[in-house]
Amino acid sequence: MYNIIQCGLGSMGTLMAEIALEKKDISLVGAVERRAEYHGTLLSDYLKKPIEKSAKIFSSLKEAYNETKADTVIIATGSFLKDEVTLIEEAVNAGLNVISIAEEMAYPKAVDEKIAENLDKLAKKNGVTVLGTGINPGFVLDLLIVTLSGISRSIDTIYSERVNDLSPYGETVMKTQGIGLSPEEFDASIKDGTVVGHIGFPQSIMMISDGLNLDLDKIAEIKKPIIANKRRVGKHITVEAGMVAGCNHSVSGYKNSKKIVELVHPQQIEPEAEGLKTWDYIKITGNPEINLRVEPEIAGGTGTAAIAVNMVPLVNQAEPGLKTMIDLPVPRLSSLARE
Amino acid sequence: MYNIIQCGLGSMGTLMAEIALEKKDISLVGAVERRAEYHGTLLSDYLKKPIEKSAKIFSSLKEAYNETKADTVIIATGSFLKDEVTLIEEAVNAGLNVISIAEEMAYPKAVDEKIAENLDKLAKKNGVTVLGTGINPGFVLDLLIVTLSGISRSIDTIYSERVNDLSPYGETVMKTQGIGLSPEEFDASIKDGTVVGHIGFPQSIMMISDGLNLDLDKIAEIKKPIIANKRRVGKHITVEAGMVAGCNHSVSGYKNSKKIVELVHPQQIEPEAEGLKTWDYIKITGNPEINLRVEPEIAGGTGTAAIAVNMVPLVNQAEPGLKTMIDLPVPRLSSLARE
Repeated sequence: MYNIIQCGLGSMGTLMAEIALEKKDISLVGAVERRAEYHGTLLSDYLKKPIEKSAKIFSSLKEAYNETKADTVIIATGSFLKDEVTLIEEAVNAGLNVISIAEEMAYPKAVDEKIAENLDKLAKKNGVTVLGTGINPGFVLDLLIVTLSGISRSIDTIYSERVNDLSPYGETVMKTQGIGLSPEEFDASIKDGTVVGHIGFPQSIMMISDGLNLDLDKIAEIKKPIIANKRRVGKHITVEAGMVAGCNHSVSGYKNSKKIVELVHPQQIEPEAEGLKTWDYIKITGNPEINLRVEPEIAGGTGTAAIAVNMVPLVNQAEPGLKTMIDLPVPRLSSLARE
Repeated sequence: MYNIIQCGLGSMGTLMAEIALEKKDISLVGAVERRAEYHGTLLSDYLKKPIEKSAKIFSSLKEAYNETKADTVIIATGSFLKDEVTLIEEAVNAGLNVISIAEEMAYPKAVDEKIAENLDKLAKKNGVTVLGTGINPGFVLDLLIVTLSGISRSIDTIYSERVNDLSPYGETVMKTQGIGLSPEEFDASIKDGTVVGHIGFPQSIMMISDGLNLDLDKIAEIKKPIIANKRRVGKHITVEAGMVAGCNHSVSGYKNSKKIVELVHPQQIEPEAEGLKTWDYIKITGNPEINLRVEPEIAGGTGTAAIAVNMVPLVNQAEPGLKTMIDLPVPRLSSLARE
């Protein structure tokens, strides 16, 4: 039985807590949430499920692990390594295994080698395992590509794209992708950092490069506006023709000036309005050639929450240290409660 | 640097030796072959590549490991556990890691739990790792399905098929699939065991069942003739309309009389002659639903040889014991020589 603390009860964290409750081998012993109105309240009330009364919503991780007997914390509080590293270190020092869905945690050394090394040392010292995961980075544009390469005799190039529909997402996502802006506003927002596009490309491409020993010597990201050719009506926003419907973000990795890897992730609302399919696509040229598609694309929200919870047993069984998805055995659905 | 012995120099073993020579981190130190005319000859002559003169073709595994400093043996001598277990035990007792492409070695306990347990104990005692792998079983109809399930919140059913073209294969494959027989002859040959269909279904379905804790309580295989509707002209054989062009072999796994997993592998010559596409297809129903296709199917021969060689570093780095593909980190292209 794994005893877990869910850290962060936003939409992703709440989904992760719900999924954790479905597992035969997981006990959700507590949660941590920023919003003060929930502090000290029962998880059973928050999630509207039968959960032991001892499982409360705590104001801090420290309070949570002091009041429970947890072995693992699952963190869903942000995207960036630097915002999360103090929390992760605290968990590690408390002897907890850590699973984070922060995009930058999928391959921390892509952001900061020193932080990654220190985390690895600290995890080993405390005998715990730290893992970043998610649908992307963590699965589609990296782990799946690495896995496919296992049947390759040789690889010339790797091209992969994930085309998804952002319509269900809220205001924050609309802003970080520049949706609804004019093309000029989009360019300005890229410059001032308001539009960020996809978070996780350095992680994905370095996971591929290290996994396959590609030894890429140049990595370059491009962010371009996706201009609507016709009106697109989303759940939360309407984009007129000529305005920005999303951000076409890509990353390429080169070796001796030759492009070896290209990962493309156009994120937009209502791509179907212009006849665009959503999918995950991987094309590997070499011997043999591989053409893989998942159509429609793997659902991002459920996929991220599910893989984080599914990794609990593998993380608990792993050797101590900072791990990535290519260090551990393949992910798998961990056991469901079958009532 | 990994020093490997290639055991078996048939078409698969020869391909594996050629792939091993392309790796920066592998040294092919010798081979074992049944055919007496090659005993004592140089691998460099056999493979027509520059290889050290000490790398010879030996008559037995014992001679090979006595005359070389090998750490790993890759075996390509057959399909069945019972035919290979003595050889594997000998390798293990000699302190060698073992990678086998025998289909039944992909999940040995599906054939004989006792043999699997003994192999595991023996490997642990000798501090070595034993792995069975290949494209199928070992990758398409098992590992890839398990990997995909990692992003699942829940799974209702798993359906997967691999449709391939056997035209390039030789006489043995034509016979074991019943190609060219009349439907009546096919039925008789299934009964007397001459037509075997696909080898590896019990391995694939048990890998999935154990990996996902599906707890299947009934497994049933079906073998049916694929009757040509029109003349199919293969490389080695022509099949007239009304005759058998292949074997449609499938396996289903049930839980409480409900079919949970179905794996289908129709193997035939020239499926394109009747407009059939070759592909690898996986459909997982549940939350979320996943539809994956690889089109055309991943090349079987190259894929099997490549994954066996690609697993050399991971097998050498693994904990001792009998392992399967779901126990080790995801496969990946291991480093190529880049001249």
